[in-house]
Amino acid sequence: MNKAIGVMDSGVGGLTVIKELMRQLPNEKIIYFADERRCPYGDKSQNQVREFTEEIACFLSAFDIKLLVLACNTATAASMPELREKLDIPVMGVIQPGSRSAIQRTNNQKVIVLSTKGTTESHAYGRKITRINRDVEVTEFACAPFVPLVESGRYHDEDEVDKCVNEVLATLKEHEADTVILGCTHYPLISHSISKFFDYNKHIVDSGYETAREVSTFLDFHDMLNTEKPEKHKFYINGDYHRFEETLNKWIPNMRYTIESVDL
Amino acid sequence: MNKAIGVMDSGVGGLTVIKELMRQLPNEKIIYFADERRCPYGDKSQNQVREFTEEIACFLSAFDIKLLVLACNTATAASMPELREKLDIPVMGVIQPGSRSAIQRTNNQKVIVLSTKGTTESHAYGRKITRINRDVEVTEFACAPFVPLVESGRYHDEDEVDKCVNEVLATLKEHEADTVILGCTHYPLISHSISKFFDYNKHIVDSGYETAREVSTFLDFHDMLNTEKPEKHKFYINGDYHRFEETLNKWIPNMRYTIESVDL
Repeated sequence: MNKAIGVMDSGVGGLTVIKELMRQLPNEKIIYFADERRCPYGDKSQNQVREFTEEIACFLSAFDIKLLVLACNTATAASMPELREKLDIPVMGVIQPGSRSAIQRTNNQKVIVLSTKGTTESHAYGRKITRINRDVEVTEFACAPFVPLVESGRYHDEDEVDKCVNEVLATLKEHEADTVILGCTHYPLISHSISKFFDYNKHIVDSGYETAREVSTFLDFHDMLNTEKPEKHKFYINGDYHRFEETLNKWIPNMRYTIESVDL
Repeated sequence: MNKAIGVMDSGVGGLTVIKELMRQLPNEKIIYFADERRCPYGDKSQNQVREFTEEIACFLSAFDIKLLVLACNTATAASMPELREKLDIPVMGVIQPGSRSAIQRTNNQKVIVLSTKGTTESHAYGRKITRINRDVEVTEFACAPFVPLVESGRYHDEDEVDKCVNEVLATLKEHEADTVILGCTHYPLISHSISKFFDYNKHIVDSGYETAREVSTFLDFHDMLNTEKPEKHKFYINGDYHRFEETLNKWIPNMRYTIESVDL
């Protein structure tokens, strides 16, 4: 089955997911949509985010994809159950894999989730984790400045990132959780500073890394894995894509792809 | 859906899988069958192992289980496709999760698989890994003495285990792979010595740890997770269960369970 996997995000965050998808599943072709025009999603209402996500799902479905990955935590929190009902292809989000990885890795049953305001307020992580394992204690924490920091490209400036991380996470410094979920796909681009803030002594769960693994599990179990390496991956962006492409080339160098502006 | 998960192994190896199942999915009830009478499977023919596995699957299916886990690499290698066709419940093995975890964790694309003779000769790991990602180089290596070492209870004697591990793995000492799959569910009971042999500088993949995670992925995706903690787990053994129970109580202390001898 040589169909593609559709992946959506509000911007560049989903690149942390597809980088892992391409590394773990090199035979899979990716069709990616970045909603740069309406980014960030974190401060929009759940209804708005759901509407955007459904629109993008509809766009991507037109390419005969075999699976849709919501590579955005805010979109996953807002839209998963509805999208699963509406689409006739399977839909995977990033919250479930991140939750499961935290349950797997925590030894003291205490987990911090760093995410956008939207994801934090939805309590999607807290609900998912305790639904699977109610012995785990979850602290959900909103980090509004992180997405703009990454989208603006300033994530390369280590001093600036350290400063921002130190300010935003200050009250968590002494938290006893042994595991931290990066509950937004933009955060792996600043994960080094987050790790450093916690003195490198917490497990850091990267939802991209984990989602790629679960996509592999799902496709393999249902015998839907591709057998040949794809020619090129495909990117669609609503609006000017130059800044996006800069991050894309830095984050995933040497990838063969095409990119196109669309009016969505 | 408060049905149980059926789990089978040739002996105590599958306990490394259910320990993780119970830790990651505390609401799930386990019904376990240990084929102590015919253990070890590693030196039996594929046909024999397939026959044993089908017989046990048939026995466990009678308890209205929702999922069958083959917690034995040799049984997985010999029986997976046939069992999936025969049973009307989903079947998960340990080779697929271990393979995926190795793909996820290796950085230099070189992986060693330690397993029984039966698993090694089946090339089930090599095939699965390269099917998903042909860039990964797989070295499959049979370790016949490890299962008897564990089943006899001698895995507590660190000196004896170190000696055995050093002898069996000697030719792998300088191998450049960065990741080692414990491709037999008995091996996690001696994983410390294996890790030590490789100077603690390789990723060690424990198929139990990984299988529990994938069971969670599967049950969650298909909305089949239990919501209440089970009263007691259930163990069936063909023959005398005293030595089995000793390992059970050491490996998973404080578990509530019943155990019964059956004639299979």
